[in-house]
Amino acid sequence: MIDLDSNATTGLLPEVLDAMMPWLRDQHANPSGSYGAAKRARKAIDEARTQVAGLIDAQPEEIIFTSGGTESINTALHSLHALTDTALPAVTSAIEHSAVLRCLEALPREVRQLPVNGAGYLELDALRQTAPQAAFISLMAANNETGVIQPLSEAIEVARQAGIPIHSDGVQAIGKIPFSIRDHPLDLLSLSAHKFHGPKGAGALYLRSTLSFEPLLRGGGQEAGRRSGTENIAAIVGMGAAAQAARRELSGNLSARLAAMRDHFEEQVMNALEGVHRNGDMHHRLPNTTHLSFDGCEAAGLLILLDEAGLQCSAGSACMTGKQKPSHVQIAMGISETRARSSLRFGFSKLNCMEQVTPAAQAVIKAVNKLRAIQGSSTGPVSVYGG
Amino acid sequence: MIDLDSNATTGLLPEVLDAMMPWLRDQHANPSGSYGAAKRARKAIDEARTQVAGLIDAQPEEIIFTSGGTESINTALHSLHALTDTALPAVTSAIEHSAVLRCLEALPREVRQLPVNGAGYLELDALRQTAPQAAFISLMAANNETGVIQPLSEAIEVARQAGIPIHSDGVQAIGKIPFSIRDHPLDLLSLSAHKFHGPKGAGALYLRSTLSFEPLLRGGGQEAGRRSGTENIAAIVGMGAAAQAARRELSGNLSARLAAMRDHFEEQVMNALEGVHRNGDMHHRLPNTTHLSFDGCEAAGLLILLDEAGLQCSAGSACMTGKQKPSHVQIAMGISETRARSSLRFGFSKLNCMEQVTPAAQAVIKAVNKLRAIQGSSTGPVSVYGG
Repeated sequence: MIDLDSNATTGLLPEVLDAMMPWLRDQHANPSGSYGAAKRARKAIDEARTQVAGLIDAQPEEIIFTSGGTESINTALHSLHALTDTALPAVTSAIEHSAVLRCLEALPREVRQLPVNGAGYLELDALRQTAPQAAFISLMAANNETGVIQPLSEAIEVARQAGIPIHSDGVQAIGKIPFSIRDHPLDLLSLSAHKFHGPKGAGALYLRSTLSFEPLLRGGGQEAGRRSGTENIAAIVGMGAAAQAARRELSGNLSARLAAMRDHFEEQVMNALEGVHRNGDMHHRLPNTTHLSFDGCEAAGLLILLDEAGLQCSAGSACMTGKQKPSHVQIAMGISETRARSSLRFGFSKLNCMEQVTPAAQAVIKAVNKLRAIQGSSTGPVSVYGG
Repeated sequence: MIDLDSNATTGLLPEVLDAMMPWLRDQHANPSGSYGAAKRARKAIDEARTQVAGLIDAQPEEIIFTSGGTESINTALHSLHALTDTALPAVTSAIEHSAVLRCLEALPREVRQLPVNGAGYLELDALRQTAPQAAFISLMAANNETGVIQPLSEAIEVARQAGIPIHSDGVQAIGKIPFSIRDHPLDLLSLSAHKFHGPKGAGALYLRSTLSFEPLLRGGGQEAGRRSGTENIAAIVGMGAAAQAARRELSGNLSARLAAMRDHFEEQVMNALEGVHRNGDMHHRLPNTTHLSFDGCEAAGLLILLDEAGLQCSAGSACMTGKQKPSHVQIAMGISETRARSSLRFGFSKLNCMEQVTPAAQAVIKAVNKLRAIQGSSTGPVSVYGG
């Protein structure tokens, strides 16, 4: 089995699981207690907070632990909604993750989804025109399907000039590329641990210390009153360990190692096959991600063949079994529906190795050739589904 | 170390950790994927859903997995708020957990906190008078501090006659006493795994299939669109295993075993010491909980001495280091502030054994005697703190 679906999720690093185990096996105290075991749990949470802050050069008190990226994003957007003039629109891009789009849609205010160019990169002029009459901005750091890194520095400058707050969904970027909140002075930033080899069920919200905030989950007042609920200590400790590992490896050659695997994979697939298109901006792309369209193939059929061949990848976040919709990201890029339905996303992680690249590329080449042979022509997509 | 703070949290059962380990160690697929590993993850979630449903005699599709009790409660109350007339008040009790009280307070609608009697049991007449002009009811199944089991059957009947929905915070009751949604036909019920030897970071919301619902966390559409966010598979599987174990043991003698330890503990402490008061309704009480006040002692001092003696307990959920406020639950029961400050909560679990009872009782007796000796009188509380 070769896992090239690391934009969907990643496995725990052994050192992350090791850090979590004492908090699962022996140490179960509620950190709100007054006794020694509870104090040790609080101390472990504090250490993890420092580790997560360290990954993005933030202060520990600016980190709020949550149950994951979706909760972080919903919390950020609800808080921005509560603290800004509801007569003004929220501004975001058309290619955000559904956690941003569905959350904003449900708010009683106008939402402006700004366009991207054909390479999946935000149209900055649209942002410059819209921001002065907007309440707040939410722009992803990197797209989950194409891996395209968005112009966050420029967007932060636009927000600053308009005098409005800006949130970023950093779920796909953080842990894959170096990222400093000093270089990108956002007001809010959402993180997810399981995208960088931490546990599922752990996320964080960076909150600039000078920004007002309204919590989404209320109760016992944990996380300095900003996120109530008994702390998931094992998951928090795991997120801290994963953040520490990511920081260490990003200051080494992680990005280069991911790009080397990804580029070698792309090269083999594109050299062996006609009618393959790379989607997304080649100059602003996560080092681990490639998004390819295969003329004359339907992604659903390729996924079945690749699963049989032991290769895990995906047709984009919108693809779930029995629910084939062309991705809103590709549609926003102006990619035709036919081509959008022929696209696969591959994501490399540090748990992959160079030895997996050729077998993975061969599996893709074989699957595409097989699907095209079944069809016998390249004029339209074919599905291996019965109906 | 003897842990009698199981109303705060409980340790994982070994069988629960065993069930979780494969999903932490090897199996990390995102259940939204299309390949075999993702399908296995979905299947494991389905099995856990059936196990949790089984604990309360619900249908699996009526169970929504969340990140814990606080999220379940906030989700339930936000949904009830969104779907009812905001001109009508929400009705709850004065002794709810802060997850209910703080969440309701933040909603733009009136909240009526109904009184309890001196034994901490809801005044049903107040509920009967209020419900006909109310939007919805939220009543806890059992109180977290006193363990008093509330008149849920009667409250459900009041809600039915008033034609309004009712939610219950079942966090402290579920897993400690047998509970069937068939006998208690609630509309919504919140559960927390770590209160019955499941993992922290896992909770569930029971949602009657005929009830309208508005999600709190929006995004990728997981949990049938009712709670978005990548599923925390290990935690969900752990909650399922804990629910299965709780169901098995509750159909055996678990409640009786807990009550035997608790009663033996109470007996020893009350026989050895003067000026000890049991708080809460003796006829409607969780089998594992005792809540005691010690004349002439401050709880903060007792907690320090008991920690030194290796006994973990708490002064109630409102007690946190450096933040000594008399509990709102005790105040609502008409307990004086002095007596409220002298109260400790002890909670037994199935991980305790009868051999721990006498050492625990002896530690309490010794600590109370020591604190009273330091003070030299019984006219007021004394603190062992410096300031």
